[in-house]
Amino acid sequence: MPNTKPFLYTSLSPALLHLYNVSQATVVIIDVLRATSTIATALYNGAKHIVPVDSVAKCIELGRQINCITAGERDGKIAEGLSYGNSPFEYSREFIEGKILVLTTTNGTRLLHMALDKGAREIVTGSFANLNAVTEYLLQQKNNVILACAAWKDRINIEDTLFAGVIIKKVRDYFNIECDASHTAVNLYEKAGGDLFAFLKENNASHFKRLMAYGLEKDIRYCLEPNQANVLPIYEAGKLKIY
Amino acid sequence: MPNTKPFLYTSLSPALLHLYNVSQATVVIIDVLRATSTIATALYNGAKHIVPVDSVAKCIELGRQINCITAGERDGKIAEGLSYGNSPFEYSREFIEGKILVLTTTNGTRLLHMALDKGAREIVTGSFANLNAVTEYLLQQKNNVILACAAWKDRINIEDTLFAGVIIKKVRDYFNIECDASHTAVNLYEKAGGDLFAFLKENNASHFKRLMAYGLEKDIRYCLEPNQANVLPIYEAGKLKIY
Repeated sequence: MPNTKPFLYTSLSPALLHLYNVSQATVVIIDVLRATSTIATALYNGAKHIVPVDSVAKCIELGRQINCITAGERDGKIAEGLSYGNSPFEYSREFIEGKILVLTTTNGTRLLHMALDKGAREIVTGSFANLNAVTEYLLQQKNNVILACAAWKDRINIEDTLFAGVIIKKVRDYFNIECDASHTAVNLYEKAGGDLFAFLKENNASHFKRLMAYGLEKDIRYCLEPNQANVLPIYEAGKLKIY
Repeated sequence: MPNTKPFLYTSLSPALLHLYNVSQATVVIIDVLRATSTIATALYNGAKHIVPVDSVAKCIELGRQINCITAGERDGKIAEGLSYGNSPFEYSREFIEGKILVLTTTNGTRLLHMALDKGAREIVTGSFANLNAVTEYLLQQKNNVILACAAWKDRINIEDTLFAGVIIKKVRDYFNIECDASHTAVNLYEKAGGDLFAFLKENNASHFKRLMAYGLEKDIRYCLEPNQANVLPIYEAGKLKIY
């Protein structure tokens, strides 16, 4: 009997995305520290929608045109000309409810636009914060899937790989996975065991270290905690929204 | 005190090699199944030297010009116009001693030329077959190191990642490793445990599957066995040789 399960691939870096056929797949954008965690959180807390943009200039420009919150970081800090950063703790319900967030980040929003340019059939965003929402959606849709890790300036990172791993662990029986990167991710997740914070620390993970040096341990711990903002952001017509 | 250890990075795919500064490093080309295993074996068995070339056409051309063995595969099979393949078992001492081998492969020799074009300071080849020779060389030289996995048509593969992992496990105390890909590789190796053949099988590794389908289980088992051909091939002036 032919294998009729949908395929699943993992792209561990934006520099590898071109290897996969995004036009026939749901692409899950993964930027655990912190873009996609923050996207889930802001929408969970009632943001009207999020406009992901791929440059600071576009973010500022949109900020002039519409009534919105402009936010974004470059190299882990609030970018010049923008008002807010990329911490999920900035987007409490009191602050963000009913508002539009225009967001640009070093890796995550850039990758989203790359997937868009390559003609992705559908784009959603994933993070531990919305783990179950992503998992349930993929299982329910039964589409082909590409897990697209944002990495750090094209260098593979552990935290995005771990998130790809946990997704694969949960859905692998329902997908055809002929992809060593996917198997690597799930083995890394299994090796990490229960305490992902400790695992990143032990392994001297690059972006973990960078954020710790900025005093952002609280952000990291939040971003590794499953299901704190269990919604599914779907990209459509320039906006990330919950449908 | 500043960290004065040399750096070590791992490039899990040729498509990521540009992220690393090869001009200041010893680049270890890794193509476990089977190019770099075969290179070690042929030199161990007395080949005079090996000329790695990046195309079948160049291989044929050189075969016309000098007295040599022309060999190479494309997609795991002997390429049209060449006489021998990419199996270590083709290069016994009886066959290869004193001869020049001109070799082209799908991933490994292509990556070597890529490292060369990017100005690598030094190029050596690594595989389980020459694990100890590589490890000892890196520890002795104390140069910066880039472990460059050949992967499969730019897609990350498990077996090259495992070999990067074992090297890192052996040398990590002597290098400064700020590289999530390296930490991923070593965790994968530790997760695999003792039986790498079983690990590749369980994980449905793509190239493992491909070679198994060609009936090459014997090759795979050999290529995963440490120190069967413990020599260090170093690239110089167009040739891989033991110095």
